[in-house]
Amino acid sequence: MQALQAKASEWSGVKQDDAFAIDDTNLFQKLGLQTFIYLSTNFYSRVYDDEEEWFRSIFANSKKEDAIQNQYEFFVQRMGGPSLYSQRRGHPALIARHRPFPVTHQAAERWLHHMQQALDSTQDIDADSKVRMMNFFRHTAFFLVAGDELKSQNQQPSCKHGSSNQLPCKNF
Amino acid sequence: MQALQAKASEWSGVKQDDAFAIDDTNLFQKLGLQTFIYLSTNFYSRVYDDEEEWFRSIFANSKKEDAIQNQYEFFVQRMGGPSLYSQRRGHPALIARHRPFPVTHQAAERWLHHMQQALDSTQDIDADSKVRMMNFFRHTAFFLVAGDELKSQNQQPSCKHGSSNQLPCKNF
Repeated sequence: MQALQAKASEWSGVKQDDAFAIDDTNLFQKLGLQTFIYLSTNFYSRVYDDEEEWFRSIFANSKKEDAIQNQYEFFVQRMGGPSLYSQRRGHPALIARHRPFPVTHQAAERWLHHMQQALDSTQDIDADSKVRMMNFFRHTAFFLVAGDELKSQNQQPSCKHGSSNQLPCKNF
Repeated sequence: MQALQAKASEWSGVKQDDAFAIDDTNLFQKLGLQTFIYLSTNFYSRVYDDEEEWFRSIFANSKKEDAIQNQYEFFVQRMGGPSLYSQRRGHPALIARHRPFPVTHQAAERWLHHMQQALDSTQDIDADSKVRMMNFFRHTAFFLVAGDELKSQNQQPSCKHGSSNQLPCKNF
């Protein structure tokens, strides 16, 4: 299969290098914990109030405060801060943890629309950090769309869980 | 479902806090890049020469040098070093990237057996670092077993890719 990250770059229009330019600086040190908390709170306030029912409903079975905490803890950890997310929940395992949700191209664009607005209305995020973060978010959103498409692959009858079959299971 | 990290702790016998005690120190700064390269080279030399054909065959479709590089780049990134893995391959997405492989309890134990031997025969890894790393590896191995078991869940007919169904897809 085409690598997940290749699909992510193609669909998002963000090159791999630009997506991970978040690692060329320490955004956590630059912005601080409180900024990430504000950002995720702002973002999910928009999501949970979205006028688009199809998008809002994706989040209907999650508590808003949990969604906020999961998100800012992941951002903090991934952008140079303490590993708050892993200490509480283990590996991010981004694709697996998004399995319950229909992460379509349309959903990725809607997510990014709200995130752009949240970034623009959160104080103390400078223009350079905003660009780095949006490139990271855009690439990641489409990485998850690529991961979501794995779900639609058919189960191979020859690929059994726990089998010692030499052929790799291409899907599940 | 029971959270992935809860299953990982239960099956591995490693508490979440102990698994992520790798984050209480900077193992990359302590051990250096070369040690991680030696470790992964040592580990995969054992794996590709394993007398257990069922285990060796899991890796048969991957190039040994690729397996080595993927592993040490991930370790370096996760243990305090530069984000070598993400710069080349994007998010680790550990569970999704292990989808092609049958990550059973038995396979996890065999993986850990080789890793313990690799750690013990790699110079310059002090006892404290070894304990931290093995706890992390053990917890992670069973986190992936938990992720692997998601594969055996049946597809729900009502859960369609790209659907705006309000019910979350419980599996794929």
